[in-house]
Amino acid sequence: MKKFMNKAESMVAESLEGFVSAHEALVMFGSQRKFIRRRHLVPGKVAIISGGGAGHEPLHVGFVGDGMLDAACTGHIFTSPTPDQIMAAIEETDTGAGCLLVVKNYDGDVMNFEMAAEALTGRHRIETVIVDDDVSSHWAARSSGRRGVAGTLIFEKVLGAAAESGMDLAGLKALGERIRRHVRTMGIALGGVTVPDTARTTFVLEADEMEVGVGIHGEPGVSRQKLADADTITAMLCNAILADWEMSNAGERALLLVNGFGGTPTPELYLVYNLARRTVEAKGIQVARSLVGTYVTSLDMAGLSVTLAMLDDEALHLWDAPVSTAVLHWGTNQ
Amino acid sequence: MKKFMNKAESMVAESLEGFVSAHEALVMFGSQRKFIRRRHLVPGKVAIISGGGAGHEPLHVGFVGDGMLDAACTGHIFTSPTPDQIMAAIEETDTGAGCLLVVKNYDGDVMNFEMAAEALTGRHRIETVIVDDDVSSHWAARSSGRRGVAGTLIFEKVLGAAAESGMDLAGLKALGERIRRHVRTMGIALGGVTVPDTARTTFVLEADEMEVGVGIHGEPGVSRQKLADADTITAMLCNAILADWEMSNAGERALLLVNGFGGTPTPELYLVYNLARRTVEAKGIQVARSLVGTYVTSLDMAGLSVTLAMLDDEALHLWDAPVSTAVLHWGTNQ
Repeated sequence: MKKFMNKAESMVAESLEGFVSAHEALVMFGSQRKFIRRRHLVPGKVAIISGGGAGHEPLHVGFVGDGMLDAACTGHIFTSPTPDQIMAAIEETDTGAGCLLVVKNYDGDVMNFEMAAEALTGRHRIETVIVDDDVSSHWAARSSGRRGVAGTLIFEKVLGAAAESGMDLAGLKALGERIRRHVRTMGIALGGVTVPDTARTTFVLEADEMEVGVGIHGEPGVSRQKLADADTITAMLCNAILADWEMSNAGERALLLVNGFGGTPTPELYLVYNLARRTVEAKGIQVARSLVGTYVTSLDMAGLSVTLAMLDDEALHLWDAPVSTAVLHWGTNQ
Repeated sequence: MKKFMNKAESMVAESLEGFVSAHEALVMFGSQRKFIRRRHLVPGKVAIISGGGAGHEPLHVGFVGDGMLDAACTGHIFTSPTPDQIMAAIEETDTGAGCLLVVKNYDGDVMNFEMAAEALTGRHRIETVIVDDDVSSHWAARSSGRRGVAGTLIFEKVLGAAAESGMDLAGLKALGERIRRHVRTMGIALGGVTVPDTARTTFVLEADEMEVGVGIHGEPGVSRQKLADADTITAMLCNAILADWEMSNAGERALLLVNGFGGTPTPELYLVYNLARRTVEAKGIQVARSLVGTYVTSLDMAGLSVTLAMLDDEALHLWDAPVSTAVLHWGTNQ
């Protein structure tokens, strides 16, 4: 395990300090450095708060800013933030219109966000949207349901834009539940990851193997297969998504996201995007928006996921709305 | 070697096709797919053209768009584009005000861009700016001078904005030469890279080694050392830059760029940024602008570089100017 770090236990804090320093016009630390918040809160706007374990960056902190998240709570690597962190974020960023929590569907995350929300009942109006876009965990009949993976950023962008436009808490909750039915992701890895704390590699693949259906915590997927070419892999990912999904959205338009897990070079992501776009278009789905890059990671895992989100006109409009964060940044001419 | 690819020989073409497809509002293929160009050329503006071998993405193609490059010519992996490609780009994007070629200082690139420019003498007004920001190749007393590495994107952004503002070819050439004196980069790798064509790894490090002073083609650096912690590495990189450089710019402001080589997770880049910023500020240099991310790569190399650019008011203003490309994208409020 080789990493640019001093000590494993201070790695997350040092990195977040650098992040805030590099983007000081947009973001700042919240109280006692328990979370990172948008520098300029908007009074009367519903606060959008997310978070999770570290190791998925730029996810969460990279999306704090105008038109997206008001706060992101970061736990230790692959470890949920504490209820205390989440409570601090709610208390500091709720300017009166309430808070919407965007929570990836992992037991620890769900529990800690719930505990924070319950502890503040009566003092803050709080709703939660659970993100559970991972097709492979559905296959695996995971008792707690699908995991939340790369599709999370779509929830954060669309809900963030809606809050910015003045949508109230009930409207945001309803919009989140609607999006939830229409976002699906499937991932694949060419290798496991080494967690700095433990220096333990999560799973080890042979030179001719790939791990199908992985999540974003280095956990093994649902099947280990012989390494295939990009055409075969891409078709498999797209078909898994389409098979899982009731395509009740025919006629609507898709956002296609190809997301790298941290160790996959950009050109490979574009190569897979090219094939994925053809595959879904061959099924009669119009790809209206695209995003290709390294956004939701599993440390430096070599691998990627394909996400398909069927968006109606309102959600597409919100996707297109201006955003100014460290990672997603566009104006009105997108 | 595990990669998302079909065949090594078609990898670059398939990836570029995906890139154009994902960003079709901004870019398109030029004639016979010899290069990628800005979709909407601006008549009377000097065309800014760059390029080089593939394997450095998002460098070059990711910076084609409004306010930056008009065209990028991509060769095969780590191989210069041909004069034929460069000539086609000049002929298609020169709308009358001439072309500025931004060329990284490698023998093959310099030769091929020169051949293209000479072949079009009399038909197009062409100037060239050579990028040679790499401190380590200076140490190594490389006969052809410093290599062009991550600092290239600073040239492309500042010169692109200047061209967009209406600066003429002579002005751009002079500006480019001025920037050239004030941009320095130093890189380090934790491992070599495997080139898909040859399936050969460029150099192999032991688990406790690092390679200091690497470039962006997987070539060995200037010294192999025992792996150190991030504080030590960052101080070494910053001190190499500062020692190389006549700090005649005291009182001006710096752009600090921490660039990943492809296989280094974002949090590690921010951790190094945090330390680098403190190191240069302790020398009395004001960090006025920052950029942290994976921009100029060496396939999936684990490693990073630190770039320090001393910018005067004009160059800072041009850095801040709106830009709309696949990778750099900001509006007037940056």
